[in-house]
Amino acid sequence: MGFYCQPGMWANPTGSAAWVVTAGSDLDTPWVMTPAELLNDRLRSVHPAAAACLSSVGKRMFFPKGIPAQATEARSADINATIGQLTDGAGGALPLASLSQHLQGLDLRDVFLYTPQGGQRPLRAAWGARLTRPGDAPITSPFVTVGLTHGLSLVGDLFADEDTDVLLPDPGWGNYDLIFGARRGARIVRYPVFQDGRFSSEAMAKALAQVRTKAVVVLNFPGNPTGYTPSEAELRPWLDAIAATDKPLVVVSDDAYAGFVYEPGRLSRSPFHEVATMDPERILAVKVDGATKELVFFGARVGFMTFAAEGEAAAILEEKLKGAARSSVSTAPAVSQAMVTAALADPGLESQRQALLSEVAGRYRTLKQALADAHLPSVPFNSGFFAMVHTPGDPEDLRQRLLSAGVGVISLQRHGAIRIAYSSTTEADLPRLVHAITLAIEAKAKVAP
Amino acid sequence: MGFYCQPGMWANPTGSAAWVVTAGSDLDTPWVMTPAELLNDRLRSVHPAAAACLSSVGKRMFFPKGIPAQATEARSADINATIGQLTDGAGGALPLASLSQHLQGLDLRDVFLYTPQGGQRPLRAAWGARLTRPGDAPITSPFVTVGLTHGLSLVGDLFADEDTDVLLPDPGWGNYDLIFGARRGARIVRYPVFQDGRFSSEAMAKALAQVRTKAVVVLNFPGNPTGYTPSEAELRPWLDAIAATDKPLVVVSDDAYAGFVYEPGRLSRSPFHEVATMDPERILAVKVDGATKELVFFGARVGFMTFAAEGEAAAILEEKLKGAARSSVSTAPAVSQAMVTAALADPGLESQRQALLSEVAGRYRTLKQALADAHLPSVPFNSGFFAMVHTPGDPEDLRQRLLSAGVGVISLQRHGAIRIAYSSTTEADLPRLVHAITLAIEAKAKVAP
Repeated sequence: MGFYCQPGMWANPTGSAAWVVTAGSDLDTPWVMTPAELLNDRLRSVHPAAAACLSSVGKRMFFPKGIPAQATEARSADINATIGQLTDGAGGALPLASLSQHLQGLDLRDVFLYTPQGGQRPLRAAWGARLTRPGDAPITSPFVTVGLTHGLSLVGDLFADEDTDVLLPDPGWGNYDLIFGARRGARIVRYPVFQDGRFSSEAMAKALAQVRTKAVVVLNFPGNPTGYTPSEAELRPWLDAIAATDKPLVVVSDDAYAGFVYEPGRLSRSPFHEVATMDPERILAVKVDGATKELVFFGARVGFMTFAAEGEAAAILEEKLKGAARSSVSTAPAVSQAMVTAALADPGLESQRQALLSEVAGRYRTLKQALADAHLPSVPFNSGFFAMVHTPGDPEDLRQRLLSAGVGVISLQRHGAIRIAYSSTTEADLPRLVHAITLAIEAKAKVAP
Repeated sequence: MGFYCQPGMWANPTGSAAWVVTAGSDLDTPWVMTPAELLNDRLRSVHPAAAACLSSVGKRMFFPKGIPAQATEARSADINATIGQLTDGAGGALPLASLSQHLQGLDLRDVFLYTPQGGQRPLRAAWGARLTRPGDAPITSPFVTVGLTHGLSLVGDLFADEDTDVLLPDPGWGNYDLIFGARRGARIVRYPVFQDGRFSSEAMAKALAQVRTKAVVVLNFPGNPTGYTPSEAELRPWLDAIAATDKPLVVVSDDAYAGFVYEPGRLSRSPFHEVATMDPERILAVKVDGATKELVFFGARVGFMTFAAEGEAAAILEEKLKGAARSSVSTAPAVSQAMVTAALADPGLESQRQALLSEVAGRYRTLKQALADAHLPSVPFNSGFFAMVHTPGDPEDLRQRLLSAGVGVISLQRHGAIRIAYSSTTEADLPRLVHAITLAIEAKAKVAP
């Protein structure tokens, strides 16, 4: 039904205050609800889990139907004096040559003018097509974010606050703590990815048992810093535990490293697609991914956020997202969007991507072999950009020794390990790197009392 | 002194938990403070107003000295396996040709790889040089944000919450409400820019008298939607009122439309530079500006955030900003940054900018004359991209009539006015636009009872 999206109903140009809504002729009197309350009310009906998981910010969020909506209506006007950008008067860009001289083969309107909230439509359509296979559960049109961090931060804005438990992989990406802990004040619950050197089958059930009222669950395969992707059988108990939840959950698949899997028998798709089939009474599935790693375009800041939802639920979640995005960054960068859109339409893209995948897979295999030959104890890894190596003694001390030998790695003190980003070394350098680690460990052992 | 920024002190790779800090040899025992508490403690000494204005999020914010710091230390390592990006193993980018074929004359590392938190250093230096004149109060190096909205949103993150009054111009930009109200839950206090058809001299003093404990004050000249910039004499009572505050204030100059001033005798610089000279016991001055309008690059999403601070206060505010930015978007888009950096170094830029300024100034003068000839009552305007015209009766009704006549404008119902973005029309179209408004008003008058 969707009376929340009738055009003009929220024509509140200042974006503030309550608004009188007359919902239908079957009511004698109008009632007063803010646009956000109206969304929340409908969301409770069409996606109970999403509604139950909203944070205080999420509950307040909506997309004001002010200037953007009026500008859309004027799109075909003869004289369009709606939007505050400088154009040629016919919708064309007026780029400074100092800027445009660095570009070729792109429509300058797509680069220099504002893009729609949520992203350029051809980009959303192209990314959506990449995600979808016949028989999948319905998903929303991917919403363009300023890189994956922005997508995760929008999840935090909408669904995390002091009352929320955020379940994070351990080892996991340090920025999760900043996004969900420092920014949103949520309670962090860490679940171990490994136990006794193997993928932990019980981790998710145990972590879910600690949830107080509602939770955000972050899944990250291939993982950072683990470089690990489980098999379907390994992941099964996690998905079963999620499906059996009695508390409402937002389950986020952080698929930053999607596609970088170098061994057979590993998950061939994001767990998002299975979580997407679960009961919306308890579970909202979210996918966060992007061009950052998948298109090897780290500087783009083009990410995507996709919900498992359709119809009115999809429309409400898009409204919430548009409000959260407009109040954090307005829109994602147009030039990056235009470049990614063009690349996705380029028939040569796939073979270029495969060539880079082969390159990094070669580095992976060389590192794996060198670590085995050196009998260095690594955490299981099979995908992504990283490997973790356990260190005898203080990993920070080992890092410093390696630095003196001209080798840079990351020390993960809490995990008694170092992280090797083999994605940023040549294949030829990796045996040397492993040899340097061996030497540094041996030198330390000789000095030790 | 600044012991908060000694290298390695916060070497907390997971970015969580408290950290033992040994501040100096004059202490017998170390004590435990979180990195954020340490920043807050020092900020109270070196910038009392900034410390007093921190929100709950602002108090929690810090920049984990984990992977980025370790990666910086490894910058000159022979083998650098620290950062999770895919490179050629020697710090060079490996861009997909489908993407890089659209670029020319830019260093591909600057486009495709991650940029430092806070922005590319040459860009920060170049923008800082644009802002500074001899004799100015000290300011921080401009921090690159994802457009101006992101800068305002970071102000909200760090300084606005339920206890904060946010003083907004009225009429003012609708997105302020979403950023400070819906997102941060602050109390909105609107101050009238005009009274009886003239710039209101008392507005700021009256609004400041309503502040409960602390406030964020937003100044916006040239204004959106007013298109107004006051003279120095007009603004004087506002600045005097701010200087006389007894409550701590963060005073934000939203200088989106900086430089687009078409009349003599108006403010020639942002009020930021005068607020910057005020007492840090009570006042923190912030400048938010960017390439969006100043370089007519709406799609760039390159904004800047600059504080009036130096030394340790500047360093602490930068740490807080880096944490808030890393947890909202990570970094700003690299390709846009590289393009803006190149443009700022291009000797041809200034004449190109002047040509566009002349173009929009011509539109301004034509609209002004046409409105005067038609005796249409406009709100005072002299700058920026907009003019507001008072409407007899419902402005939304007038907007719809104009739309039927092929003319798109924005209705601002709360102000009984329409907004004309003359920046997006040709000069030739503006007399037609004004004629259409006259006809629509007359037609309405004939129909009215």
